[in-house]
Amino acid sequence: MFRALARASATLGPQVAGWARTMATRQLLVAPPEALLRPLSIPNRLLLGPGPSNLAPRVLVAGGKQMIGHMHKEMFQIMDDIKQGIQYVFQTKNPLTLAISGSGHCALEAALFNILEPGDPFLVGVNGIWGQRAADIGERIGARVHPMIKDPGNHYTLQELEEALALHKPVLLFLTQGESSSGVLQPLDGYGELCHRYNCLLLVDSVASLCGTPIYMDQQGIDVLYSGSQKVLNSPPGTSLISFSDKAKKKIYTRKTKPVSFYLDMKWLANIWGCDGKPRIYHHTTPVVSLYSLRESLALMAEQGLENSWRQHQEVTAYLHGRLQGLGLQLFVKDPALRLPTVTAVAVPAGYDWRDIVNYVMDRFDIEITGGLGPSMGKVLRIGLLGCNATRENVDRVIQALREALQRCSRNKL
Amino acid sequence: MFRALARASATLGPQVAGWARTMATRQLLVAPPEALLRPLSIPNRLLLGPGPSNLAPRVLVAGGKQMIGHMHKEMFQIMDDIKQGIQYVFQTKNPLTLAISGSGHCALEAALFNILEPGDPFLVGVNGIWGQRAADIGERIGARVHPMIKDPGNHYTLQELEEALALHKPVLLFLTQGESSSGVLQPLDGYGELCHRYNCLLLVDSVASLCGTPIYMDQQGIDVLYSGSQKVLNSPPGTSLISFSDKAKKKIYTRKTKPVSFYLDMKWLANIWGCDGKPRIYHHTTPVVSLYSLRESLALMAEQGLENSWRQHQEVTAYLHGRLQGLGLQLFVKDPALRLPTVTAVAVPAGYDWRDIVNYVMDRFDIEITGGLGPSMGKVLRIGLLGCNATRENVDRVIQALREALQRCSRNKL
Repeated sequence: MFRALARASATLGPQVAGWARTMATRQLLVAPPEALLRPLSIPNRLLLGPGPSNLAPRVLVAGGKQMIGHMHKEMFQIMDDIKQGIQYVFQTKNPLTLAISGSGHCALEAALFNILEPGDPFLVGVNGIWGQRAADIGERIGARVHPMIKDPGNHYTLQELEEALALHKPVLLFLTQGESSSGVLQPLDGYGELCHRYNCLLLVDSVASLCGTPIYMDQQGIDVLYSGSQKVLNSPPGTSLISFSDKAKKKIYTRKTKPVSFYLDMKWLANIWGCDGKPRIYHHTTPVVSLYSLRESLALMAEQGLENSWRQHQEVTAYLHGRLQGLGLQLFVKDPALRLPTVTAVAVPAGYDWRDIVNYVMDRFDIEITGGLGPSMGKVLRIGLLGCNATRENVDRVIQALREALQRCSRNKL
Repeated sequence: MFRALARASATLGPQVAGWARTMATRQLLVAPPEALLRPLSIPNRLLLGPGPSNLAPRVLVAGGKQMIGHMHKEMFQIMDDIKQGIQYVFQTKNPLTLAISGSGHCALEAALFNILEPGDPFLVGVNGIWGQRAADIGERIGARVHPMIKDPGNHYTLQELEEALALHKPVLLFLTQGESSSGVLQPLDGYGELCHRYNCLLLVDSVASLCGTPIYMDQQGIDVLYSGSQKVLNSPPGTSLISFSDKAKKKIYTRKTKPVSFYLDMKWLANIWGCDGKPRIYHHTTPVVSLYSLRESLALMAEQGLENSWRQHQEVTAYLHGRLQGLGLQLFVKDPALRLPTVTAVAVPAGYDWRDIVNYVMDRFDIEITGGLGPSMGKVLRIGLLGCNATRENVDRVIQALREALQRCSRNKL
């Protein structure tokens, strides 16, 4: 076909001739890279780290579908489906509910960019890497950040928070429900109410916990909630879920300054996601195919039922905990009630280099488990049982791999 | 399997019992949405708007592949392949070259957030919607924005720019190579040199033009160049391409303030993309599957060869222009040398409502063409021939559809 075009071009007149002149003025100085001439090859991995997880079969199928336009009515229907799915998994009736065109960090920025204005006091629970990141972003946009720093493995009590709320009078409190870097499950009952008594909004990160453990956005008084696609939802990374209460929405719509980001400006996003009742106007090109996948993830969760998903994670993770203890390993979080039912942190056994264990399990079994992250680096190994990966069969596989790793990896190298 | 787990749970001890109590404390108030119980159905569309375009078959296959971890060595290899592919299509040897985890707007923000500091003078060519957006973002982050406003359909000459550079002494100039909202091709030869004489960096948007018309980042002295995945590259939207010259990199590495975004902080991104020679540290979870697709798009371009792709777009678009004129339609950009070889803007024919034409072509032919955008809204119809969609067969299809639309749509309704 291309050859035919080339032959035809002689008859196409002055425009092509002009372009051809332009093209001839320079030479290509960078050649086609040889690496790209090799075929794409993706290994088969069982992803039992803290995420991303493996894709559910139906999500895989969605990812292989052809494009439609980001402003087509069928796409708006898919976005509406996603909104309803998020409302379901968040247990909220908030109209301002949508997916962000970026990973979980992007959703965190969307929350902070839209809620905080320069000078706003911002209280942050920093008991792992996610709080560190929230504090970092808060500082970048000029908020007065008050970090509450705790060693990884700890959580925040109502009493501690009440003292901090009284002292700093923040407009926003950040807590992580599933601190995946340390395996801590932050309780949330009563925290929203407490915040509201101090005129503070409550922002919760549920990236590593959503659909693996109960959360009730409305009943728990959470004002901003976000999560990721690539954990229990078994979707590819690249989209994230977010919702704002009416209180949070009011803060956004009465702010004095524009958010620093246009890409994440919630007034624009509310419009394109059909949350403001106005005709939808082009904002950015949404990640159409990733949204197909996210829609399918949420459909799977609607079919399974949230409570069944919570129970599945809790039972399979309890089974994992028993098997780990059977290997003589110690769980990093001491209080069983504070252990996350999705990502488990295991203390690195004495004398071992955690890297040897992680590499052994990957190299011999094609299973991903990981070390710590941020403040928990070097202290823990982490095993995630997320969505379709949360099965007893997978627990048996990773336990077998770990048992062998503990036998074969050399001790006391450190 | 789940039933078996439920039966087994009675023996799992106090942890599950504790979780079960937590779960029982509240009721679900939001039911699984019925919309999500319907199957996902994606219509077949020929996307001949200004983008997104249809996915190439090999890109479709990549989108259906299983996840691996964002920090696995195979993923770093894919990222390295992508970097080399971007260097090829940009014609640059810049080490600071990578893909952004977001759409083209996100890449624009990545450029402005990292280059500009509050108070920096920023000169913006506003001859369509993309310049409007760049000016908007510049204002959000506190730059002193100097917009050079022109009616859509116009471009910027070296002489005009020299006057503005002398007057405003900007640190950065923004130009759009392919103004897809008006169909203008901005010339770039000599513009980088001119900017550098005035100590200004040159930032170019090539979202709608890359691989459809020549660009030579290094030879043309472009300091920051970005583009999207969903135009000529025929990949899904959700990733974008960016590269920084050494001059631009120096500005980033010597800035006094942190960029407002952590997600788009180029020092972090440079590390995770292997551009700084240091061991890669977790920053955010990259959109793994979208990067598979992007890698395949770039591989296709490496195989086809840039010059062949440029020629294909120029020849097929010239054929489209001839056919449009044969229908009695007028091209919006008067000077043939300034017409974009990817997206063509046609003046809305007198007496017609552009919406009727666009809807007719969509409803009867399943072909997307679009109206104007931003300043060109209501003035033009836009037809894109992007990547694998740039064929004479597709031109013939859209011309047939347009001919019928012009016959059937009622005139003088307005």
